[in-house]
Amino acid sequence: MRILGIDPGLQTTGFGVVDAEGSKLAYVASGTIKTNGVPTGDLPGRIKILYDGIREVVARYQPHCAAVEIIFVNVNPQSTLLLGQARGAALTALVSCDLGVSEYTAVQMKKAIAGHGGAAKAQIQAMVQRLLGLPGEPGKDAADALGIAIMHAHARVSFEAMSRSTTLQRKQHAQFKGGRTY
Amino acid sequence: MRILGIDPGLQTTGFGVVDAEGSKLAYVASGTIKTNGVPTGDLPGRIKILYDGIREVVARYQPHCAAVEIIFVNVNPQSTLLLGQARGAALTALVSCDLGVSEYTAVQMKKAIAGHGGAAKAQIQAMVQRLLGLPGEPGKDAADALGIAIMHAHARVSFEAMSRSTTLQRKQHAQFKGGRTY
Repeated sequence: MRILGIDPGLQTTGFGVVDAEGSKLAYVASGTIKTNGVPTGDLPGRIKILYDGIREVVARYQPHCAAVEIIFVNVNPQSTLLLGQARGAALTALVSCDLGVSEYTAVQMKKAIAGHGGAAKAQIQAMVQRLLGLPGEPGKDAADALGIAIMHAHARVSFEAMSRSTTLQRKQHAQFKGGRTY
Repeated sequence: MRILGIDPGLQTTGFGVVDAEGSKLAYVASGTIKTNGVPTGDLPGRIKILYDGIREVVARYQPHCAAVEIIFVNVNPQSTLLLGQARGAALTALVSCDLGVSEYTAVQMKKAIAGHGGAAKAQIQAMVQRLLGLPGEPGKDAADALGIAIMHAHARVSFEAMSRSTTLQRKQHAQFKGGRTY
């Protein structure tokens, strides 16, 4: 299962690609898509770069699914609006490639990667490096995106374990009730 | 020049297509793209409907350019964030079709259509019906989208008139200075 993680932003969008086999993880690629070649006021132009950039990443690494960081309301409402539009563009690029998209908050990701939801950026970078056995620390935006991909891999493993245990309980329950197994 | 106007929203996105030849306008089509077939919590699913819907409109009516309403910060920051993502998806769909996109505020549109920036929805509907010689009033979202398309047609005419007058002034200035015409 190849997972593409995205940390959306209007200036810089981080991406990270990870292969997950059960709880085993392997690094594939990571990087950023930057829109600073286009004037700040040209929102459609910046959105075009984001859209093309994400589709290029999908075409190159062929992920099976994607996970995107959930953004929150900023102290500055105008920033919230701009970031919302960037995230909308990122989601659009992913669904236009027919990828299933899961969403996680930064707190969920930080808990999964560093053990607590208030972890600093530098801790996430160090933990992502360790978890994926990288020769050096990834950049901040790439580390967040890789973190989101790893978070999704963990969530899938937990979900599968939960499904198995529920099936087992159902079987035991059925045996208790009527001695049958399904 | 065929113009596609878009009034973006997460639940309902209005679209309106208008042909403009100088100040002459002709109605082509209008309607809405609704995402209510998808559960409210499934943002990627709703964004996919928006993206596919807008691309279908572009494929069917082949506009030369697009104009999109600029949204503003809502009293509810969470609504701002959701609307921002819907607008991001609409912009992405348009630029993915290689359409040039202009942006206008609702106040600019209302001034251009009804004469004042505080015009009610019903006034916009009535004025759009009159300006385009329609047999009936368009729905609210479609009327806003048609209004944005008409606004863009007006802005183009004003811009061209301004360019002509600037060219004329330059010519007169040149004649005054050295008697040459360019």
